[in-house]
Amino acid sequence: MSFYEKLKFNSDGLIPAIIQDQASGRVLMMAWMNRASLETTLSTGKTHFWSRSRQKFWMKGESSGNVQLVKDVAFDCDGDTVLIQVEQAGAACHEGYRSCFFRSVAGDGATDRVSEPRLQTTEEIYGKK
Amino acid sequence: MSFYEKLKFNSDGLIPAIIQDQASGRVLMMAWMNRASLETTLSTGKTHFWSRSRQKFWMKGESSGNVQLVKDVAFDCDGDTVLIQVEQAGAACHEGYRSCFFRSVAGDGATDRVSEPRLQTTEEIYGKK
Repeated sequence: MSFYEKLKFNSDGLIPAIIQDQASGRVLMMAWMNRASLETTLSTGKTHFWSRSRQKFWMKGESSGNVQLVKDVAFDCDGDTVLIQVEQAGAACHEGYRSCFFRSVAGDGATDRVSEPRLQTTEEIYGKK
Repeated sequence: MSFYEKLKFNSDGLIPAIIQDQASGRVLMMAWMNRASLETTLSTGKTHFWSRSRQKFWMKGESSGNVQLVKDVAFDCDGDTVLIQVEQAGAACHEGYRSCFFRSVAGDGATDRVSEPRLQTTEEIYGKK
């Protein structure tokens, strides 16, 4: 039985993919993959996803240059989530932070705080619009 | 604006929660939360989820004793995923592994391999049925 047959894609044909920086252990982002984006991720060694909002296949870093080189692909006991270890170029977050999870809850949910430095501005990542 | 107002729960009122071991950085599991389980997670300091298959509110460790003490709650740029740092008692996975992501892809997806030792048997976790 291949790896793909052990996975459960949801009713939209998607599975959540957690992306983790292999060197630091920092969780960088979570995005959705369909089978084609997962196959391309494995065959090219660069992460590819399916954008639910844009209904579009995309490669991480295609606009920003901040690609993710795949180091390991794991999947969970239920087969409904994948965990991918990567080597991340630059900022993973489109807002210029290393991780999309740059905010943490403070004060029982009443407020939040930024937990890491911003590496790049949006202009630096995507150029002036 | 409170933390909750920055989150986007899906059409079922759920948001995916990535659970990470704060000490080791190991990603332990991914499960779903509704607003009530997230509020209870924050107020009690122990993770609570919503089971989609059982349609049931549950506390991690309620059967196994392997509870998760909450150390930090972060959320991503889009507000559609949370990342929770915990102190994990015992195995996070119901199959007795520290992490639910105990299998990794090998050989371009044709096979997979177990990447960590099993800590407990199912019988040791849940008792004889």
